[in-house]
Formats: sequence, structure tokens, C-alpha cells
Amino acid sequence: MRFAKGHGTGNDFVVLPDLDGAVNLTPAAVRALCDRRHGIGADGVLRVVATAKVAEVAHLADQADWFMDYHNADGTTAEMCGNGIRVYVRWLQRFGLAGAGEVPVATRDGVKTVLLPADENGDITVDMGPPQIPGTSRAVRIADRSDPPVYPGLEVWMGNPHVVVALDDLAAAGSLVLAPLVEPQLETNVEFVVDRGDGRLAMRVHERGSGETQSCGTGACAAGVATALRRGQARGSWDVDVPGGRLRVEWTGETVLLTGPAVIVADGDLDPEWLARAGIVP
Amino acid sequence: MRFAKGHGTGNDFVVLPDLDGAVNLTPAAVRALCDRRHGIGADGVLRVVATAKVAEVAHLADQADWFMDYHNADGTTAEMCGNGIRVYVRWLQRFGLAGAGEVPVATRDGVKTVLLPADENGDITVDMGPPQIPGTSRAVRIADRSDPPVYPGLEVWMGNPHVVVALDDLAAAGSLVLAPLVEPQLETNVEFVVDRGDGRLAMRVHERGSGETQSCGTGACAAGVATALRRGQARGSWDVDVPGGRLRVEWTGETVLLTGPAVIVADGDLDPEWLARAGIVP
Repeated sequence: MRFAKGHGTGNDFVVLPDLDGAVNLTPAAVRALCDRRHGIGADGVLRVVATAKVAEVAHLADQADWFMDYHNADGTTAEMCGNGIRVYVRWLQRFGLAGAGEVPVATRDGVKTVLLPADENGDITVDMGPPQIPGTSRAVRIADRSDPPVYPGLEVWMGNPHVVVALDDLAAAGSLVLAPLVEPQLETNVEFVVDRGDGRLAMRVHERGSGETQSCGTGACAAGVATALRRGQARGSWDVDVPGGRLRVEWTGETVLLTGPAVIVADGDLDPEWLARAGIVP
Repeated sequence: MRFAKGHGTGNDFVVLPDLDGAVNLTPAAVRALCDRRHGIGADGVLRVVATAKVAEVAHLADQADWFMDYHNADGTTAEMCGNGIRVYVRWLQRFGLAGAGEVPVATRDGVKTVLLPADENGDITVDMGPPQIPGTSRAVRIADRSDPPVYPGLEVWMGNPHVVVALDDLAAAGSLVLAPLVEPQLETNVEFVVDRGDGRLAMRVHERGSGETQSCGTGACAAGVATALRRGQARGSWDVDVPGGRLRVEWTGETVLLTGPAVIVADGDLDPEWLARAGIVP
């Protein structure tokens, strides 16, 4: 069985080509693939499969040839992943399944449009859709600091929940070993953002369930939207520096465009004996 | 450029075949390969190269065809690695460069003898050489526990330093986020070992420079030797359960034999563009 490993700003994925939908990708198999010591290691698995071959999305087959079947490292599925979909389309490009221009991709959150450059190493843009801005204010405290200050957080949804805190210095966010405390309580991703001016943001993110990560695509989008709102604007564009690299976010007023690198590190074959032990049977 | 990923009890490696010694494997290239987010990800790199092609070990070429050029994830080199050499020889077996029986392997610590079974999935044994037992007693405290008890530690060298602490319960070792404090001071690996009787040990290890790890081959050997000494014996054999799996240690009285699994997870090609960015030029 073939695989590739790739990443977007340090958010990394195992790409599993299964064009005809022959693989039964169980949660245990996903955990085995994503195990960083006993497997390949990644934040998630991107199974590449023809949309028409998957019952839950077959109705999208006339709009998008390929379905991004996204699985988190813990074996759960997710609707969308802003860094993952760029790596997914880069893989389609490298293996001749997508050409430059607009590439529609079926996801559990509907069909997403990806803008693929002709340059096989150029940045890739994905239309992430409009943000939802509930207007709730949330107080954020750093759980692993003693006597922590309380920061005002702005709630922004990009399909998933985010609370964005503006800081003068990212070091003030502390070690982020523990999830920040959010009141009123919300199971959420939390972004700490420094507005450096001239359209440049610096961001650290604590992802629910994962802890601090190198990058979060929806989090970068939420950071841009929150920064605009704090300035009383309903659009804008930013370079967002995350620990794993740099993303570009543009809020057009209607939708949010996320642009960034998508790198294939390697590709090859999973060992048949390892596959059998992991319970992955093609 | 080809590569493989493999592990022994969760101690994982990138195998880099460079049979003719054409690759200039810089510390930066090793760090790029071992980066778990932007690269393949591993505890170290095992470069496979003909002994005759490497000046520093060419004098061993009449004893061993292949040199295990071992690099830690931080780009430094090491003399030997008990889990790594088993993965190295499994790779030689899979790719037809070693057959069942005694396989000599050149290392920076001289020629090591590996016993390879005919079964391509069978456990592999490596002769780790005799232990050195200096007789110094060391007091060990868990640095990240408040009011920690002081444990007596036994110093055992297996080419590298170990201090072995006997416990009734591995949970007593705490989180091991910080390096245990050793007095008189020594930069050392520290093993916490429960003697379960009937030749069974359970072990957690804090490796200097790496923190708590899934497994440590020399640490398992040191744990066996220390357990024998505590019982007033100068030989013995043990199954050693580490977080990443199970190893077998036999102290014959003369030498220490380490036996355990060696798994190839996958093999393939590193992406040319990624290689260029990482500065790895074949």
C-alpha cells in the first residue's frame, strides 16, 4: 500500500491513496499510522478516494472528483482541515490527478474550492467560507500560570470554535501546557495574537484535544477576522506567523481565503507485515 | 534518495541507504530528517554505508562489510545504539544485504555481532559487550516532585552511563518531565525498575538530553545487570517491559545480550524538492 507524508506549516499528514475506496480505514488503523514512534507519525490521515465511491458524499460526485476523507490522529473524523486540504491537493498535483486552477474537493463540510498554482512548489489557497461571529465575549486565563491575568477573548467560528486573545507579547501566553480557561465555559481552540502592524500577525494556538501546535489553519483565519473586528473593519488581509511557518489570510468581507505552503516530504510503500499487524487490510 | 522508517520497541529511526558513501550527511540534514513535523521524524538516522568507503572505520572493512553511521536527532553522532543496530540489520536483511546467522556490523565503538534469525519478523539479538560497574553509589531524587524521597541508585555503564533505581511501583517515578537529580552529580541516563519476580522487570527511563523515552536498549541492559547485582548475582536473564514494548536481556557473566523486535514500517523516496530545501545533496 502506497503512502506519502506531507505538511503545511508544520501541521503534518499521512496521505493514503485509496482511489477506488478499497481500504477499510478503522480508527485503530489511523492511530497506528499516526503513531510517531511505532508508525509513520502525523497529526492526521488524508485518504484520497473517488467521491463516487463513498456513500456519504457520493451526491457530490458531479461537483468534485475527489473526496478528502480526513481523520484526526486519535481516530475520529473531522469535516475540514485548512492545512490538510492544501497538502491533499498538492498530492493530487504531484500524482497527475489535478492541474493548475480551481480544484473542487469534496469534504464532510461540502465542496471546497482550492486554487492550485502551476508551480509544483508554489503556495496553495483554499476558500474556507465565511466566519461566524456570535458576539459572545469570553474571558481567558492561562491555566498553567500562577496568578494569571484575565484576557478578553473574541469568539469566532470557522466551522469550528475559536477564542482569539490579543497580546503585546506571545511570551505572556506562558507554556500552554494546560488548556487556557475560558468563561463562559466553551470547549474551544484558543489563539494568542500579536498585531505587529502593516498586516503582520504573530500567533500561538492551543488546539482543543491536542495542546499547543505548530499551526492551525482555521485558527489563523479566526485570528485575522478577530483583528479586523477589533479595528472596526469587516475585511482585511494578514501574514500570520505561526511556530511552524507563515500563512496568509484574506477576509474579503464575504469569505476567508487561506494561503500557504504545502510540502510533500516523501512517498513510498507501507511494509506488508507492518500493515497486517496494524490491521490495515487493502 | 531512498529511505526507510523503522523502530525497535518504539525507539524509531530513519534508515538512509548510502551504500557507496556519496551522501554528505550534515547535522542540519539529520535534524531535517528527524523533525517530526517538517520531515520524516525519528530519534535518529542510521546511514547504511560500506565500511571500506568511510575513512574513520575503513580499517574494520575486513571484519564487517557495513558501517552503522548513527546520528542522534539533534545532529550529533553516537557510538552505538542497541535498538538502532537491530533495525539496521533488519533493513540489511529485507534488502538482501545480510542473511541469517551472525552478522558483524562496524560501529564507532568497534565491530558488534548481531544474531539474525531466518524469520524476517523474528526478534534480533545484539552482543552489547560487558558492563562496567564502577561501584559508586548515587542518590537519585525526582526533580519534578515536591518533597521527593531519595532513592539509592546503582551506577552501571554500558558504553554510556546509567544509574538504576529499584522501585515497588513505577508511578513513584512521577512525571519525569525534568531530569532526576543525581548526587554525586553525573550526566547520566536514569532507569526506574520494578522487579516483578520470575525474571520479569518493568522499566521507565529518563535519557539525558531526550527526557523520558519509550525505550532505551543500553538502559534495559543496565537494569538487568543492576537487578542481578542487588541479588548478589553476576549473571541472569530478564524480560524487560518498557513503555514501547518488551526487550530481553541476558547477562552471561561475560557479556550482555540484548534481544528484541526490529520493525520496518515503510520505505520509499524522499521528495527531491524537500531534499534540496533540507540541504541534502546526494
